Amino acid sequence: MSVMIAGSVALDHVKTPHDSQQNLLGGSASYAALAAGLFCDEVHLVGIIGHDFPHAHLSLLESKGIRLEGLERSSGASFTWSGEYHNDMNSRTTHSVGINVLENWVPKLPAAAAAAKIAVLANMSPDNQIQTLDQLQGASFVAADTMDLWINIAQARLNEVLKRVDLLVINDGEAREFAGTGNLIEAGRRLLAKGPRYVVIKRGEHGSYLFGERPEQFFACSAYPLESVFDPTGAGDSFLGGMAGWLAARGLHQPTFADLRQAVVHGSVTASFTCEAFSTHRLQRVTAAEIAARLGELQAYTRF
Amino acid sequence: MSVMIAGSVALDHVKTPHDSQQNLLGGSASYAALAAGLFCDEVHLVGIIGHDFPHAHLSLLESKGIRLEGLERSSGASFTWSGEYHNDMNSRTTHSVGINVLENWVPKLPAAAAAAKIAVLANMSPDNQIQTLDQLQGASFVAADTMDLWINIAQARLNEVLKRVDLLVINDGEAREFAGTGNLIEAGRRLLAKGPRYVVIKRGEHGSYLFGERPEQFFACSAYPLESVFDPTGAGDSFLGGMAGWLAARGLHQPTFADLRQAVVHGSVTASFTCEAFSTHRLQRVTAAEIAARLGELQAYTRF
Repeated sequence: MSVMIAGSVALDHVKTPHDSQQNLLGGSASYAALAAGLFCDEVHLVGIIGHDFPHAHLSLLESKGIRLEGLERSSGASFTWSGEYHNDMNSRTTHSVGINVLENWVPKLPAAAAAAKIAVLANMSPDNQIQTLDQLQGASFVAADTMDLWINIAQARLNEVLKRVDLLVINDGEAREFAGTGNLIEAGRRLLAKGPRYVVIKRGEHGSYLFGERPEQFFACSAYPLESVFDPTGAGDSFLGGMAGWLAARGLHQPTFADLRQAVVHGSVTASFTCEAFSTHRLQRVTAAEIAARLGELQAYTRF
Repeated sequence: MSVMIAGSVALDHVKTPHDSQQNLLGGSASYAALAAGLFCDEVHLVGIIGHDFPHAHLSLLESKGIRLEGLERSSGASFTWSGEYHNDMNSRTTHSVGINVLENWVPKLPAAAAAAKIAVLANMSPDNQIQTLDQLQGASFVAADTMDLWINIAQARLNEVLKRVDLLVINDGEAREFAGTGNLIEAGRRLLAKGPRYVVIKRGEHGSYLFGERPEQFFACSAYPLESVFDPTGAGDSFLGGMAGWLAARGLHQPTFADLRQAVVHGSVTASFTCEAFSTHRLQRVTAAEIAARLGELQAYTRF
C-alpha cells in the first residue's frame, strides 16, 4: 500500500554544542518520507525545491526509493532553516527562516500520490495542507502535523484542517498552547474536540501520548532511551513518517486504536535514530534489524 | 515486615490557582509514611514537631496505624513551608520556609524503628540522613530522597549519603543539576556512579525512570494520567513511601531489579492520588481497590 507525504523540503543550517553543518537535507517531508520508506516501498513525496538544492540530496531520496514526481523544481531559492541547540538539546533557537520557494507554492499531486490510501500532511502551512487535502482521491487515513507558527498566525485555517483529518500529531509545548491548558491529558481531549478522531502529543525525550475518542483509548508510549542526543531536528517528522509507513506496509488504511498504538511505537523507535546524527544521516542507514532490536528493548524497558 | 521513614513533618501553607489553605499536614515523612501505610501495617515515622502542631494531624497519622514513638515533640515552632503553584501546576514558587525545630534536630530512632528491614531517608538535610543511617540496626535496604537545596549547600555530605544507600530517588530537574547533564539517561548513569545500586529519576507528569547497575537494568514507568492536578505537593514523597511500603509488605528487603520495577509502579500510582487534593486529603482515604484499579489501567495504557 502506498503513502503520500506532503510538506517542506529544506536546506538546514544546524549548530549543536558538538558541531555545526550547512546545507543539510532537512524539511518535514524529507524526514517523514525517509522514515516511511523504512517500512513501506511506495512513498510519494510532494514538495518544492529551488535551483540551489544539491543534487546529492535528491540522489539520496531516490536511492531510498522515494518517488519524486510530486517534487516541484523552481527557479527560486530553496526553503532554508537555520537553528542552534543549547543546553544538552533541551532548547533551540531559530536564527533564520528563508521561506523562498514556499512563498507562493501550491502543492500539485501526481495521480499516483493523489491515489495513496494513507496521506501525511507534514508540517507546512494550513493553506498548503488544505490544498493537498483537496487533491486527495484515495486516502482513507490522513494524518497532519503542525507547529506554533501556524497556531499563532493561521489558527482558523488550521482548525479547518483539523475537521478534515483523522490524526493530529503535535508536540507537547504546541499542544499546551493550542489547547490552552498546561495539562497534557486535558490538552489531548481538547484537541480531539477540534475534529480529528485521534491525537498524538509528542513529548520529546519522554515519548508520546495517543488519544482516541473513547476515554479508555489512551496510550502512553515511552521514548527509546538515548544516552546522547546529537541533533533532534526532524525527530517529530520521522515519528509521523514512521507511523504512516508502518500502517501502509501492513495495509492498515482504516486503522483501529490498537493498530495506531503499534504505529506509535514504530514511529517512536524510528525517531530515536534520527536524533543520533545530523540531518537524515542516521535515519538513511537504519536497517530492519536495528528497528526490531530497539522495539524489543523498548518493550523490555517498559513492561511490568 | 516493618519500614522506617525519617524526614520532615511540616505545616504547609499552599496556594493553587483554585484555592489556598493554611496549616496543612505536610513534610516528606508525613506523605511517605501515609503512602507506605497503604501497603504495610508497620510503619515507623521519625521526625520532629513543635508545640503548635495540630492534634488533628497526629490523630490522622495514628488512625492510619503510623507508629509515632520516633516523632519528637519540641517546645519550638514546627517546620513550615509556604508555596504557590502557577500555570496549571507546571511551576511553583516557595514563598517562605520556617526551619524552626529542624534547626538543631538530631533524629533519635526508637528500637523498633532502628530494627526495620527497610529504611527511607525522606527529604531532609544530609546531616540528618547520616545521623539516621548511623542508628539503623536491621535495615538491608535503604532509600534516600534529596532536593536542590542540599545539592547546592551540602553536596559533600550528600555524596557521603549516596555511598551508604541502596537507592537514590530524585526529581528530574535535580538529577540534571546534580549530574551536570541535561540528558536524563546519562544523569541516571552518573548518579549510579556516586554509589547507590539503584537510582530513580522522578519525571513529574511523565512518570519515572529506574536505573540499575547493569545497562539493561532500565525501566521507564509512565505516570497514571490525570486530567486535573489539584496540588502536587508531596507526590514525590508519596512515590517513595509507596515503593518502600510495597516492598515491606512483600518482605522484599533485598529486592531484585524486577522487584523494584513493581515497587516503582506501585509508588507511581500512589503518587497519583496525592495530586488530587490538598495535603494528604486524598492519600489518606485511598483504598486497596482504587490502587488495584489504577494499576490495571496503567498497564492497559502502556502495554504494546
